Amino acid sequence: MSTTTTARRLQTTFVSVSDMVQLIQRKGLSACLTGIADRIEREFRRWESFDKSARVACHSQDGVIELMPIADDQQFSFKYVNGHPKNTRFGLPTVMAFGVLADVPTGAPLFLSELTLTTAIRTAATSALAARVLARPNSRRMALIGNGAQAEFQALAFRDIVGVRELRLFDVDPAATAKLVANLQGQGLTLTVCASTAEAVKGVDIITTVTADKTNATIITPDMIEPGMHVNGVGGDCPGKTELHRGVLEMGSVFCEFEPQSRIEGDMQQMPADFPVTEFWRVLTGQASGRVSDAQVTVFDSVGFALEDFAALAFMKDAAEELGIGQPIELVPNNENPKDLFGLLKTRPAHLALAA
Amino acid sequence: MSTTTTARRLQTTFVSVSDMVQLIQRKGLSACLTGIADRIEREFRRWESFDKSARVACHSQDGVIELMPIADDQQFSFKYVNGHPKNTRFGLPTVMAFGVLADVPTGAPLFLSELTLTTAIRTAATSALAARVLARPNSRRMALIGNGAQAEFQALAFRDIVGVRELRLFDVDPAATAKLVANLQGQGLTLTVCASTAEAVKGVDIITTVTADKTNATIITPDMIEPGMHVNGVGGDCPGKTELHRGVLEMGSVFCEFEPQSRIEGDMQQMPADFPVTEFWRVLTGQASGRVSDAQVTVFDSVGFALEDFAALAFMKDAAEELGIGQPIELVPNNENPKDLFGLLKTRPAHLALAA
Repeated sequence: MSTTTTARRLQTTFVSVSDMVQLIQRKGLSACLTGIADRIEREFRRWESFDKSARVACHSQDGVIELMPIADDQQFSFKYVNGHPKNTRFGLPTVMAFGVLADVPTGAPLFLSELTLTTAIRTAATSALAARVLARPNSRRMALIGNGAQAEFQALAFRDIVGVRELRLFDVDPAATAKLVANLQGQGLTLTVCASTAEAVKGVDIITTVTADKTNATIITPDMIEPGMHVNGVGGDCPGKTELHRGVLEMGSVFCEFEPQSRIEGDMQQMPADFPVTEFWRVLTGQASGRVSDAQVTVFDSVGFALEDFAALAFMKDAAEELGIGQPIELVPNNENPKDLFGLLKTRPAHLALAA
Repeated sequence: MSTTTTARRLQTTFVSVSDMVQLIQRKGLSACLTGIADRIEREFRRWESFDKSARVACHSQDGVIELMPIADDQQFSFKYVNGHPKNTRFGLPTVMAFGVLADVPTGAPLFLSELTLTTAIRTAATSALAARVLARPNSRRMALIGNGAQAEFQALAFRDIVGVRELRLFDVDPAATAKLVANLQGQGLTLTVCASTAEAVKGVDIITTVTADKTNATIITPDMIEPGMHVNGVGGDCPGKTELHRGVLEMGSVFCEFEPQSRIEGDMQQMPADFPVTEFWRVLTGQASGRVSDAQVTVFDSVGFALEDFAALAFMKDAAEELGIGQPIELVPNNENPKDLFGLLKTRPAHLALAA
């Protein structure tokens, strides 16, 4: 590949938040959810082609900032993402993200994109992909605990990828649930607003938890679990931030993304180091069993892994090219003599030359 | 700090390569070199305030892509940087970089900047800062081995920060030296083009090596070292990439930036784990000795550390604000209701609204 690289390839495309809104609107959110789920499945199936590492996290009093890199021999990606549960008090999103896809043979950054919307889509796509494989066939009813920024995406991904038709909703903040109900009107989903988590989870096929508090919460307790349920735990995703009582993990077979990261960040952080868990890619490739009986409880202890962002960035890059969305951004030099960096300082900047 | 955060603060400024050229031209390269050296010194003096980690590196056949994060309790920064020695064959720079400064209390990205030019400046500023402390007082003659993209910046930093007046130049590629000589005309430096490394280093006060080959090279051997010399080893900066014969390290006192990273990446990767080295910040704060005699050989085994980029980003952010350089970039959402991410998808993108 690298032998065909020329200077003309050094073009970085930027997709802003507005560009991404346009991209998702033109492509359709369903097409993005299913397309990214397909891409994640394809990348997970070639798991061993990737140079993986646990994300780098900078923890502070109010939240965390993380970098999530991954690469195969052709492409490198990273995501910057924060998690600050108190941010909405200041009018800021709890989670903000952006990322880059780069060319491994040359190190050139090819694609810089917003990833806040994209993270919501890829997280939901991953959850639904796992549930399609791990939940009972014909799962139609899901409890959605935590009705914040990610909730609509989870709802629609489970509708489109798993076939969920009925949602039972609960959030400690009734305004969050009201927003979710308003946003999901006309989407072909039957919605039931519940007064508690216990009420919401009663009789469902799938429980999805997407709460945001950075605390060792106990949202789901063993008494809530019925035989055959699939638990999709999304919000327990950094040290000191859990959602599932450890008894829930002990009741079922537990699946994760990248074990070394999940042991630190997932709900399984509560468990001893030898607690048995299965990396989901091994189920996809047939190297490990998924669900083995209708009565089995399955738990997808999701924390979000860099490979999901790699897949999402690749999907969005292709979609942006297809639709002609995004603009060139001068992130790195594109000077005629790359050995003469200093020479750049002797030139007039392009916009000054144009203005003259 | 976080209690005063409002939605208005969620503004990310982007400084492109052209913007940075303009910034450096208006500010003056000397002012940038000395200003960043001062800022690096200030940050190194409060070393223990930072959450430090070795950089995350993705090695491939032709090079490396790295992420370099660091944070104190107020600001987080990271740099993306590659190192691909063969890139110039394809008309691409060997090193390309960009980075972000973010707000720790909220996780908001505040400043996205090109860092290719900035890395050259901060690397040279760090080298010169170390030499100002570690080289003999009144060091005026320097050998500059490797005359590629970083060489002019090293030359001018040593002129402005150390007082170097005479440079002895060598590169295996005479065209690189010719470019360097042309670029340094009229800069108040006496230049001597030499036929070999041995000739170049004869009688100098300081040896600076900035070669690019990703190989265990032996650019400087013990026989070249004279009593009292300071060696500034810049190009030995990743596993399998060294410049100094191990005997050179054994002859002198060796200083580094962040020991856990330097043990892996620096020329000291050739030495046993108990080989004595001193982190440079400890010399700055008086916790360790620097040079103790005129005859002592000192070696700064530099690899480049995230704190230098943190300092450089902070300097450039201030300079950009002062000069009104850079433009807002929509990297993360700035919607009215941050809890309603899905709601973004129901809006018309601003540029469509304008076009309508």
